[in-house]
Amino acid sequence: MTAPIDFYFDFASPYGYLAATQIDGIAERHGRKVRWCPILLGAVFKVSGMKPVMEQPLRGDYLSHDAPRFARLLGVPMTMPAKVPLNGLAASRAYWWLEGRDPGKARDLAKAVYHAHWGEGRDMTTADQVAEAAGPLGIDAADLAAGIQDPVVKDRLRAETDEAIRRGVFGAPFFIVDGEAFWGADRLHQVEQWLARGGW
Amino acid sequence: MTAPIDFYFDFASPYGYLAATQIDGIAERHGRKVRWCPILLGAVFKVSGMKPVMEQPLRGDYLSHDAPRFARLLGVPMTMPAKVPLNGLAASRAYWWLEGRDPGKARDLAKAVYHAHWGEGRDMTTADQVAEAAGPLGIDAADLAAGIQDPVVKDRLRAETDEAIRRGVFGAPFFIVDGEAFWGADRLHQVEQWLARGGW
Repeated sequence: MTAPIDFYFDFASPYGYLAATQIDGIAERHGRKVRWCPILLGAVFKVSGMKPVMEQPLRGDYLSHDAPRFARLLGVPMTMPAKVPLNGLAASRAYWWLEGRDPGKARDLAKAVYHAHWGEGRDMTTADQVAEAAGPLGIDAADLAAGIQDPVVKDRLRAETDEAIRRGVFGAPFFIVDGEAFWGADRLHQVEQWLARGGW
Repeated sequence: MTAPIDFYFDFASPYGYLAATQIDGIAERHGRKVRWCPILLGAVFKVSGMKPVMEQPLRGDYLSHDAPRFARLLGVPMTMPAKVPLNGLAASRAYWWLEGRDPGKARDLAKAVYHAHWGEGRDMTTADQVAEAAGPLGIDAADLAAGIQDPVVKDRLRAETDEAIRRGVFGAPFFIVDGEAFWGADRLHQVEQWLARGGW
C-alpha cells in the first residue's frame, strides 16, 4: 500500500518533537508520504479523561529525564523550555493556515516551531513568537498573525482535532498506518517494522 | 556494571506479560540478572492520579488491539481475558511468599500466572486459580493458600509497592537499569541498547 501515514501531534509534547525529527525519514525509506496533523491534546483529554503528562505526579519527573535521554539516543538537540506546558493554539492555527496555501512550507513551519520550543527551549505561545520562528522560511509576520485569526483556519484546527478523536487518537505523537494505530515516539520502531513487512 | 535490572510489573497488565516474556533473555545477553518485582498498580495510581488503561476511554480500545498485535510481533501467545482488569493481589502475594523460599521458583510462578492470564485468557483472581497455574511447578495449593495469608507476605507486597513509588514507578512494566528508569514494554528496545552501550 502507498497511503500516507497520518502523524498526529501537539506542539506541547516533547515526544511529538522527537517523532517529528524521525517520521519523514522513516516514511521515505518505505516509499511513503506523511500527512502532518497538529491537534490540541487539551480537547482530546476532555474525552479521554487523561491529564497532560507533565501535570501528573511521578510521570512528570520521568518525562523530564526521559525526553532528553531519548533525544540523545536519536542525536537531536533538546532543551527543556522554562515554561511548560506550551499552549500550542497559535502554532497549530499557523500550521493549518499555511497548509491551505503551501503544505510543504507548513511542514517546515511545524519543524521550525518544534525546534525552537524543544530544541532550543524557546516559548512558542504567541503569534509573534511563532512568526519569529517562521521568519527564516520567508513567512510574513503580519500575514501569519492575520491567518491565525481567520475563522476558516480556527474551524480547520477544531475539525482536525475532532476527527482525530473520532479515529481514536488519545495522545501524541500518534501514527495511523494503513488503518493501524501506534501511540508514542517509542513506537516508531514498530511503525517502521509495519512498513517494512506490510504488517504482521 | 553488573547490578541486576529491577523489573516492576502488575499481573493485570498485558504489557507486563509481554515484557515478562523478554526481559530475562535481554538481561542474559548482557550478563545481567533480573529482580522480578510484582506490585499493585492500584496503590501507585492513588499517588499518580492515573487510572487503569482499560478504564480510559479511547485508550482501552487501543490496548485491546495493540497488545495482541505486539504479542504477534514478539511471537508469544495472547488471549484477551473475558474478565479485566485482574485483581492481582493473590498472585502478587503468592509470588512474594515463594520468593522468600525459592526465588527461582517464584519467577516460574510469575511466568505461569502471566501465561495463564494473558496467554490463555484464564482468570487469576483467587488463590485457587493461582494454585492451579502453580500446580505444574510442584507448589502445594494448601501451602500457597496459607502463604498468601501470612502477615509477613502481605507486608512485603505493601513494602515493595511503596518502595516502587518512592523510586518513581508510575506504571508497569517499569525497568530500572543502573539507576535509569524506563517505562513500558515498548522501551525494551532502549533497555537493551542501554545495556549494550553502557548508557549513552
